[in-house]
Amino acid sequence: MAGIGEFGLIGRITARLSSGPTTLVGPGDDAAVVAAPDGRVAASTDVLVDGRHFRRDWSSARDVGHRAAAANLADIAAMGATPTALLVALCMPADLATGWAEELADGLATEAATVGASVVGGDMSASPTLTVAVTALGDLGGRAPVLRSGARPGDVLALAGRTGYAAAGLTVLSRGFRTPRLLVEAYRRPEVPYSAGPQAARLGATSMIDVSDGLLADLGHVAVASRVAIDLRRDAFEVPAQMADTARALGVDPYTWILAGGDDHALAATFPPAVALPPEWRPVGLVTAGAGVTVDGAPYDGPGGWDHFR
Amino acid sequence: MAGIGEFGLIGRITARLSSGPTTLVGPGDDAAVVAAPDGRVAASTDVLVDGRHFRRDWSSARDVGHRAAAANLADIAAMGATPTALLVALCMPADLATGWAEELADGLATEAATVGASVVGGDMSASPTLTVAVTALGDLGGRAPVLRSGARPGDVLALAGRTGYAAAGLTVLSRGFRTPRLLVEAYRRPEVPYSAGPQAARLGATSMIDVSDGLLADLGHVAVASRVAIDLRRDAFEVPAQMADTARALGVDPYTWILAGGDDHALAATFPPAVALPPEWRPVGLVTAGAGVTVDGAPYDGPGGWDHFR
Repeated sequence: MAGIGEFGLIGRITARLSSGPTTLVGPGDDAAVVAAPDGRVAASTDVLVDGRHFRRDWSSARDVGHRAAAANLADIAAMGATPTALLVALCMPADLATGWAEELADGLATEAATVGASVVGGDMSASPTLTVAVTALGDLGGRAPVLRSGARPGDVLALAGRTGYAAAGLTVLSRGFRTPRLLVEAYRRPEVPYSAGPQAARLGATSMIDVSDGLLADLGHVAVASRVAIDLRRDAFEVPAQMADTARALGVDPYTWILAGGDDHALAATFPPAVALPPEWRPVGLVTAGAGVTVDGAPYDGPGGWDHFR
Repeated sequence: MAGIGEFGLIGRITARLSSGPTTLVGPGDDAAVVAAPDGRVAASTDVLVDGRHFRRDWSSARDVGHRAAAANLADIAAMGATPTALLVALCMPADLATGWAEELADGLATEAATVGASVVGGDMSASPTLTVAVTALGDLGGRAPVLRSGARPGDVLALAGRTGYAAAGLTVLSRGFRTPRLLVEAYRRPEVPYSAGPQAARLGATSMIDVSDGLLADLGHVAVASRVAIDLRRDAFEVPAQMADTARALGVDPYTWILAGGDDHALAATFPPAVALPPEWRPVGLVTAGAGVTVDGAPYDGPGGWDHFR
């Protein structure tokens, strides 16, 4: 790192990035300029800290790039928007291999490219703690943003994407195992149903959220913001065979992963009951009058999600 | 910190923020939505790391907020744009007083409000290293962005704002002094000529840059991007009395501060010679054919600016 200097490293990284159609001015100037076709821009920031949100012995730099991008792109999708750009602040220990930053950039750029977005800018600093702060921008395509606050009693709760896989993968890694790959890879590089976000907005979703803290915790945010109660049907969640086997081997209730595990970045949305849901959106519960989140009508007595300061 | 949890702290901070006219969806959802009236958005990210870009015994949380906002807002202004929004990723040691984050937010919001911008979103994490990563968004008002690459031989180099004050203030603090206040405060809360950025764009500036790394280093970026040479006139830079006195007392050449010190966030721009410069823009040099940055026609032999990894 010290050998090539900040500007040298920035040059090497930006040389690896390609610009998409929404990038009007890319990396290398004081600011990037990104298309915002409908006169509004959706914007969200998420930060990952080494040892807290990732571990370098569990995830490659490229994995961390994918995950950091996914966490932010999912927030944009959860507004019903299509991501257009990422900006990245990277803080690195001086002894970190230069290649780490370049591979991180590759992971960020590759994940962004899956939705047509590009890394358009960033900043870099030395720091004792490896930290990746990403900001994502997105285009609402003329639609109203889908907020957390619009769920109404009688709405159907539906889910796009999967939950519990990343949490199961994290448990596997934290117990010292590297398999099953299905779960470990789900933790390293979440598979986010990005296009389901704008799709839900077009279908008339009344509320939507990126499931990053765990389904129960995130539905709790929707319930509070919308002043409603939400009831999940436990039988709407099938435990896949590999997850069931792993849960048994590790002595874990797999529903802890499915209902309270974060980091898969599924999208949860509520729809008026008349909406015909496409296959991407699986009904998993109902919105009712009241407050709080229940499972099959009763409070869930397992761990309820994450709070990073607890 | 641990006592109130992440969500509690986020709630306390967002309660202190107010939304401006460009904030369509403010903090509290998956993403913010910000107006981008002309169908484009300027976006820039800068990160400040404790012990590297600031010290808690030299700057209050509020000061750090002002400076983190200023560094980003200045990047937006340097494109010729008007800032609209900030997003903030804050990483904090678990033992940091809650009040620190709230005062930081006040500083960020107050600095942003000077240009009509608001803090619209962010993220928070525990971390061993206090880190503030800020992303600023801005509106180009229908103008072309002013890049670093447009300077042409024959252009006049002009400066808005001041240089050397923050570097002098930093030297003062690093030698254990707290005065003169003029310099120390310039370091703590830069006075950025934000409106001079869009003004320069309207006047037809051919290139522009935020002077954050030091005048010589940043003009070096313009010279490389524009494939020109830039010559500064040393007599265009007056050494103010308090800076001269301090320089003498500390045994420092004040031109080291003025020509190579960063963090005042002056704006440097080049203009075609026919442009009548308003008082905000002080001519300080000329663009010529060639390469490199000189002072009075000769290479500058003092320290040449900053590189955070050297």
